[in-house]
Amino acid sequence: MSLDPSLVLPPPARPGDPLSAIDTPALLVELDAFERNLARMQARADAAGVALRPHAKAHKCPAIAQAQLRQGAVGICCQKVSEALPFVLAGVPDILVSNEIAGPAKAALLARMALHARMSVCVDHAGQIAALAATTAEAGSRLDVLVEVDIGQERCGVADAPAVLRLLEALAAHPQLRFKGLQAYHGAIQHLRGHAERAAAAARAAERTAAVLAELQRAGVRCEVVTGGGTGSVEFDLASGVYTEVQPGSYPFMDADYGSSEYGDALRFEHSLFLASTVMSCGNGERIVLDAGLKSLAVDSGLPRVWDDGRESGSLVYAAANDEHGIVRSREAGQPRPALGSMLLLVPGHCDPTLNLHDELVAVRAGRVEAIWPIAARGLSR
Amino acid sequence: MSLDPSLVLPPPARPGDPLSAIDTPALLVELDAFERNLARMQARADAAGVALRPHAKAHKCPAIAQAQLRQGAVGICCQKVSEALPFVLAGVPDILVSNEIAGPAKAALLARMALHARMSVCVDHAGQIAALAATTAEAGSRLDVLVEVDIGQERCGVADAPAVLRLLEALAAHPQLRFKGLQAYHGAIQHLRGHAERAAAAARAAERTAAVLAELQRAGVRCEVVTGGGTGSVEFDLASGVYTEVQPGSYPFMDADYGSSEYGDALRFEHSLFLASTVMSCGNGERIVLDAGLKSLAVDSGLPRVWDDGRESGSLVYAAANDEHGIVRSREAGQPRPALGSMLLLVPGHCDPTLNLHDELVAVRAGRVEAIWPIAARGLSR
Repeated sequence: MSLDPSLVLPPPARPGDPLSAIDTPALLVELDAFERNLARMQARADAAGVALRPHAKAHKCPAIAQAQLRQGAVGICCQKVSEALPFVLAGVPDILVSNEIAGPAKAALLARMALHARMSVCVDHAGQIAALAATTAEAGSRLDVLVEVDIGQERCGVADAPAVLRLLEALAAHPQLRFKGLQAYHGAIQHLRGHAERAAAAARAAERTAAVLAELQRAGVRCEVVTGGGTGSVEFDLASGVYTEVQPGSYPFMDADYGSSEYGDALRFEHSLFLASTVMSCGNGERIVLDAGLKSLAVDSGLPRVWDDGRESGSLVYAAANDEHGIVRSREAGQPRPALGSMLLLVPGHCDPTLNLHDELVAVRAGRVEAIWPIAARGLSR
Repeated sequence: MSLDPSLVLPPPARPGDPLSAIDTPALLVELDAFERNLARMQARADAAGVALRPHAKAHKCPAIAQAQLRQGAVGICCQKVSEALPFVLAGVPDILVSNEIAGPAKAALLARMALHARMSVCVDHAGQIAALAATTAEAGSRLDVLVEVDIGQERCGVADAPAVLRLLEALAAHPQLRFKGLQAYHGAIQHLRGHAERAAAAARAAERTAAVLAELQRAGVRCEVVTGGGTGSVEFDLASGVYTEVQPGSYPFMDADYGSSEYGDALRFEHSLFLASTVMSCGNGERIVLDAGLKSLAVDSGLPRVWDDGRESGSLVYAAANDEHGIVRSREAGQPRPALGSMLLLVPGHCDPTLNLHDELVAVRAGRVEAIWPIAARGLSR
């Protein structure tokens, strides 16, 4: 199709390049901090005797899933059926779709994937069970099924143990669908700022989960797996005695939103994800204009922070995001500003939807590009 | 790489499918409304004797650019060099990168594209001119150059006519860089809600542009092209007598943000862009949960609206977006709610970054899929 073989978009960088050679905007992961984050989480899960199943919705990147599995993760979570496909193709052997699914196309793809990996999925309605039963019967595959319980988020999930028991009756008619346990996740807790406030909210959620488990046990139902938790609550989830498995997603990166919360010492993670951007216009007055706006950085959880020499910049603030422009202002009038063409590193406000804007992640170490990792599940939201 | 040839993600729909067969979330364009929008804008530009150069940053879709060119557009705008590449490859003959560019990789790609299409680009600093001169000299290509003037947005652009004249001196040293005129755009005006308020702001911006033009004319400089304007201001820009060319981008779609403003009768556009989503969980109480959240819908300019039978739903409100979930509530307690598996259509809050989340646009007419259009420039932000 190309008119000219040279008319192709080069990659943003090549292994061996210095940071200054990266074509921006480009999403970077700083490997030393990233690897420390992975090791820290795995060590804490191991010490607690709780399985770690990191959430791949945060990174959508098979290379990162493989790094997590090498550390000791028991598998990964995905949030969407289509999102799981690149991980199955990359050989990830155990994937929980930690969500309900709707529509025959999704159930059919999930049933086919279950011929190649151990797949599990959540339900909160008998209609979902019927769809999964039909497609697994057609594909000749088996699925593990978790019932999602609403532990206070008021999103998906059944309300109580009797509702779980009604779904187990529906499941029992389909031997290819095996009951694995409960999905019990509370997203809003993750982003509570104070350590004590988050501890209290996580305790209430764990109590609700424990109450459902006790009632199920009285009815003779054992849950092999109780899975949930996230980067904000994981310290408390690991200690709760309720969860057999935790699902944190953002801990490899630590975005600016999570970075604004208070943590205990043992589970403090480092910023490892940065958007490299370039000063494209010097503007007038105190502003400079970067080449990175809404289409390179998700702003749903706040604007990015300007990073400088291992900490938040004391002199520059990312003040506004347009579609393709970022407006950066000096904190105080008269301070020197970066020149046209200078590269600035930004800590994204929210890692998950920021990674979902990019096709590749530039892995850097000690100021050099080490690898380019495809974000293979980017955009796979079905 | 695939373990199994059937282990591929099917397209969200196929031509001929009814709406109900679309796998969600999927971005739809309703062709009848879309075509009326294209024709309406072109007719008004033609009547005003002003060239129409639609902004492709809104759609990133070569099929749409070709439809705009067939209607009479003189070319397109892109906002990024990499974004222009799929349009050059699709044969679009005339592209303005309506923005400054930073870094040697971008200048080099632009200079190579200029061997295949008539390319123009904006500058507001002599350093940009030096980079363009070097790469065009190396590629053996020519570029048209516009000087961007800040007409009140306080983003990019030089402040006044003397600054334009200084850049023209720098340009004059490079015969392969031809001065084409002025870029004069004011993004904030586009989204002012009231018709009279928007008219007044557009008039002030046009006055600033006219003042620069008059001072340039006194200095013996003629601007062949004065280009700017957007979907919100285009009615006033066409009548201003200042612009030779307008750059609206959102008018084919009309997102919910633009839909919240007041328009004159002649340039009222119709919603044609919808996100098809499915009820994936019935929740408890008054809520339902859709399979479309932040990763399928940009929320920077507000949440989407639920669409029902050609108008905003009177009974359902999209109340919150999580990463992969949308929480929909009834406007009043006790109203009937769509059942599990029902499809809902949503009008996105902001079209540009929403299209930037999707790889394809499902073109529908009279309730059937007519075509699948690749959003070929999605994610191309360099």
